[in-house]
Amino acid sequence: MYSHCEDGGWILGNLIDGTQAEYVRIPHADNSLYAVPPGADEAALVMLSDILPTGFECGVQNGRVEPGQTVAIVGAGPIGLSALMTARLYSPAEIIMIDLDDNRLEVSRRFGATKVINSRDGKAAATVMDMTQKRGVDVAIEAVGVADTFELCQAIVAPGGHIANIGVHGKSVEFHLERLWSQNITLTTRLVDTAATPMLLKMVMAKTLKPELLITHRFALDDMMKAYETFGNAAREHTLKVLISAGA
Amino acid sequence: MYSHCEDGGWILGNLIDGTQAEYVRIPHADNSLYAVPPGADEAALVMLSDILPTGFECGVQNGRVEPGQTVAIVGAGPIGLSALMTARLYSPAEIIMIDLDDNRLEVSRRFGATKVINSRDGKAAATVMDMTQKRGVDVAIEAVGVADTFELCQAIVAPGGHIANIGVHGKSVEFHLERLWSQNITLTTRLVDTAATPMLLKMVMAKTLKPELLITHRFALDDMMKAYETFGNAAREHTLKVLISAGA
Amino acid sequence: MYSHCEDGGWILGNLIDGTQAEYVRIPHADNSLYAVPPGADEAALVMLSDILPTGFECGVQNGRVEPGQTVAIVGAGPIGLSALMTARLYSPAEIIMIDLDDNRLEVSRRFGATKVINSRDGKAAATVMDMTQKRGVDVAIEAVGVADTFELCQAIVAPGGHIANIGVHGKSVEFHLERLWSQNITLTTRLVDTAATPMLLKMVMAKTLKPELLITHRFALDDMMKAYETFGNAAREHTLKVLISAGA
Amino acid sequence: MYSHCEDGGWILGNLIDGTQAEYVRIPHADNSLYAVPPGADEAALVMLSDILPTGFECGVQNGRVEPGQTVAIVGAGPIGLSALMTARLYSPAEIIMIDLDDNRLEVSRRFGATKVINSRDGKAAATVMDMTQKRGVDVAIEAVGVADTFELCQAIVAPGGHIANIGVHGKSVEFHLERLWSQNITLTTRLVDTAATPMLLKMVMAKTLKPELLITHRFALDDMMKAYETFGNAAREHTLKVLISAGA
Repeated sequence: MYSHCEDGGWILGNLIDGTQAEYVRIPHADNSLYAVPPGADEAALVMLSDILPTGFECGVQNGRVEPGQTVAIVGAGPIGLSALMTARLYSPAEIIMIDLDDNRLEVSRRFGATKVINSRDGKAAATVMDMTQKRGVDVAIEAVGVADTFELCQAIVAPGGHIANIGVHGKSVEFHLERLWSQNITLTTRLVDTAATPMLLKMVMAKTLKPELLITHRFALDDMMKAYETFGNAAREHTLKVLISAGA
Repeated sequence: MYSHCEDGGWILGNLIDGTQAEYVRIPHADNSLYAVPPGADEAALVMLSDILPTGFECGVQNGRVEPGQTVAIVGAGPIGLSALMTARLYSPAEIIMIDLDDNRLEVSRRFGATKVINSRDGKAAATVMDMTQKRGVDVAIEAVGVADTFELCQAIVAPGGHIANIGVHGKSVEFHLERLWSQNITLTTRLVDTAATPMLLKMVMAKTLKPELLITHRFALDDMMKAYETFGNAAREHTLKVLISAGA
Repeated sequence: MYSHCEDGGWILGNLIDGTQAEYVRIPHADNSLYAVPPGADEAALVMLSDILPTGFECGVQNGRVEPGQTVAIVGAGPIGLSALMTARLYSPAEIIMIDLDDNRLEVSRRFGATKVINSRDGKAAATVMDMTQKRGVDVAIEAVGVADTFELCQAIVAPGGHIANIGVHGKSVEFHLERLWSQNITLTTRLVDTAATPMLLKMVMAKTLKPELLITHRFALDDMMKAYETFGNAAREHTLKVLISAGA
Repeated sequence: MYSHCEDGGWILGNLIDGTQAEYVRIPHADNSLYAVPPGADEAALVMLSDILPTGFECGVQNGRVEPGQTVAIVGAGPIGLSALMTARLYSPAEIIMIDLDDNRLEVSRRFGATKVINSRDGKAAATVMDMTQKRGVDVAIEAVGVADTFELCQAIVAPGGHIANIGVHGKSVEFHLERLWSQNITLTTRLVDTAATPMLLKMVMAKTLKPELLITHRFALDDMMKAYETFGNAAREHTLKVLISAGA
C-alpha cells in the first residue's frame, strides 16, 4: 500500500512541488522509478504516471470487474475513460458510461462503452435499472467526486455488487444504509498506489492499452498557460488530457 | 449469496410467520435445512440459526479479520459478542469492545476481548486512537445500527482497513468521503447468508465455539411473554439471549 | 465443488449412460439444468455442456490468468482451444500454443494465439524459454494428459507461476520437486464443476464467446458411426468437434 | 515474492557465508532488516529469521488453513512444529501430526496437535483415512522432503484439498495424476519469502506465538561444534533447535 507509506505516499505536487519542470528531484527514487523501455511512446507513459493506474486500481481492481459482468462508470473524463479502457481487460459483457457531456459520451463509445447515458434529465438511475432488467449493475465506478454521482452509484448497484469510488470528494455524502445494510455490497476508496504500473507498462508496450489516445492537445513547456486554459475549458475545447513537452 | 436468492432469502419472520411455534413448515426445505448431529447441544444450535452466522459472516468474514490485527467491535449485544467469539478464530492481536453498558463490557472480557471501552463519555474514538498509536484499527465492526456507531467506525478505521456493517439501520448516515476517499478503506454490508453454517456447526460440535454461553435465560413456550419482557429489559436483567423450549 | 458432490458429480456417461439419445433422464435435474435462453444458438450451447467450462475452469480459472501475463497452452485440441478462447477474457499479453499438429496450430492462430510452437522437434521448452527472456511463463496449461506434456509444463513455468492440469492422465508422472520445491509454484487439478456455466452462457448469448467455431463437422443421429469415425481420424479430417443432431 | 528477487533472494548461507559470526555484512540491508523492538526476547526472534516464517508461509498460508478444517502435518521437526504452531492461528478443528519419532510426537501434543500418528508401521495413510471418515484431510503439509512423505500427502488429501510442500527435496517424486487429475487439489511449493515477518513479529511481541519453545539447547559461540553435534544427534538428544549466543 505505497499510497499510505509512512514516509512516502503522495509527495509530488502535494507535499512538495510537482514535476512540471525541466529537472526534478524524486524522493525515494531508488524504490519508486521505472526505467523507460527502449522504443516506448513517451506520451503514452505520461498517462501511466497517474490517470491510468488511478482508473485501473481504484476503479477496476477495487471494483473486481469480471468477465460477463455489467459495469457502470459515472463520469467520462480522463479518469473515467481510463477505468473504461482497463475494465475491458476483464471482458465485462456491458460497460455503461454516464456523463453530462455528449462529446465525452461519444468518445466513450469509441473507447468501447457498450451503452451511454446522458444524465442531464435526472433519469440515469431509472435508465440503468431498465437496461439491467431491474437488477442493477455488478460494479458501479464513481469517477467524479460529488454527492449526486455517489448517490447514483448507490441507486444502481445490484445486491452483491461493488461501488468503487475514485472521485476526490470535498464534502461528506449521504449513505443509504437504511436500504443498503442488507444488500451485500462492497464499497471501496483508494488513493492510487501505482502498484499496477509494471503490469500496465507491459500492456502499453504490447499496444494492448493505448492511453496516448487520451491526449487531445499538445503544448511546448513555454505554452503552459495555454495548456491550462485548454484544460480549463474542457467542454468547449473537447479536451481530455493535454501534453506538455520540454523539447523544442 | 442465499440471502438474495430471487425465490428465497429471508422468508421466515419476514415474508411469512417465524418459528416460535410447535410445528413449522419450512419453504425450500430440501436445500436449506441441516441435520442435527447426534449428541449435539440443541441450545447451542439455536444460536446457529441466526446470530452466530450473522456475527461471523457480516462482521468477521466481511471484515477479513487476520492473525495479528487490531479489531474493534462497536456494540456488545449478542450479535457483537458473536462477532467477538468468531473473530478469535483468526487470532487477532487485539479485540477492542465498545458499548454503553458496563455489564456487557464485563461479559465481553470473559468472551475474550483484550480491551473494553465504555463510550458514554463520547471519547471512544480518541481512546481507540490512543490505544493504537494514532494508527486506528484494521477492522471496525458495526453491530448496533445507528448513526453514532457508524460514525465511530469511520473515525477509527486505519488506512487500508475494513468497516464491516452488521447493524440494521433505519436511517441514512453521513459518510465522510471528504476524508475517506483517499484512505483505501473497504466497507461492506450483508444480510446473513448462513453459508458458514456447516463450518460453524463443525466447530460447535468440537466445542471450539460455545454459543450456548450467550443464553442467559430459559423459558417454556407457555412463558413466552415473560421471555419477551426479559429480552425487552436487557440492561436491567443482564439479558443476552433468551431460550424458549417447546418441551415440558 | 459440484464435481465432488457426494451424491452427484460426474454421473452421465460415467456411472450411467450418457446423452447420445433422443430422450434422457437427468438425475438431480432440479439443481443441475439451465434453461436455454430464447434466440440461443443451440450448437454453441452443446459446447457449453463440457469442453468450454472444462477449458475455462480447470485451465484459465485454476491457472489464475491475469492481464499482461504470458500463458502457454500445451495441446491445441478442442479443450486446449477452449482454454485459449477463455484465457483471452483476461487479456494476457502472450498466449503460446504448443502442439504436434500444424493444422491445429494454424487454427490456434485464428483463435487468438500470439505464438505457436510445433513440439515435434523436442525443443519446445527451449523455444519457450527463448521467447520469454529465460523467465518462463506465468501460467502453463496442460491439455493433453500424458507424461511428456506434463514434463514440458514443469520445464517452462516461471518462479511464482501456475501449472493448471486439465488432461486426463492414465499413469503417474515424474514431478521435479528437486528443482520446483523452491520455485513458489502452484499446481492444480480439477474435474470440471460447471460452476462457470451461467457466466459462460451470458458471454455466449452476447457473442463475446463463439464456441460454435469449434464445430467442424455436423451429422444426423443416424450417422453417428460416421461421426465417431471423423472424430477418430481427427488429424486427417481436421476435426475439432463433431455435432450430432437429433432432428431430420 | 522476495525469494525470487532477481538481485536478492536466498543469499546468506547460500551464495555467500551465513551469519554464524560475531559481525556480518547484510546485502540489501536497507530493505531487508527489521528493528528489534524494545523488550523483545532475542532468542524468540532468532526463530523468526527462518523456521517460523518457513512453516507459516510455505505450510500454513500456502495450504490456506481455515477455521474448522482438518490439517495433517507430515514431519514433527522444528519446521513441522512451526507449521503446527502457526496453523493454530486459524483455528482448524483437527491437527494430525505424523512422524517416526515418539518424542517429537509427544512434543507435538504439547504444541497443540489434536492427534498424533507414528508412521513407523507404514499404516499412516490408512489411519488418517479412518480418522476422517474416509474423507481425507483439507490440508496436508509436507515438512520432510523425501519421496515417502510426499507420497503420504497425496494419499490423504481430500477432494478440493491442498498439499503444501515445505520440504527440500533432493530427488524427483512420483506424482499420482492418474488419480489426482480429477480431485480438484492444489499443490504448492515455496522458498520462504519472509513476507510474513512483520505479522509474526507482532504476535511474538504479544506472546500469542512463543517460538522460543522450539529451543531445546543453548551454547556459547565457542562451543559451536558441540552445538552441531547435539543438532546432529537430534533423536538421541531430543533436540529441536539449538541456540548459539555470541555473549559470554
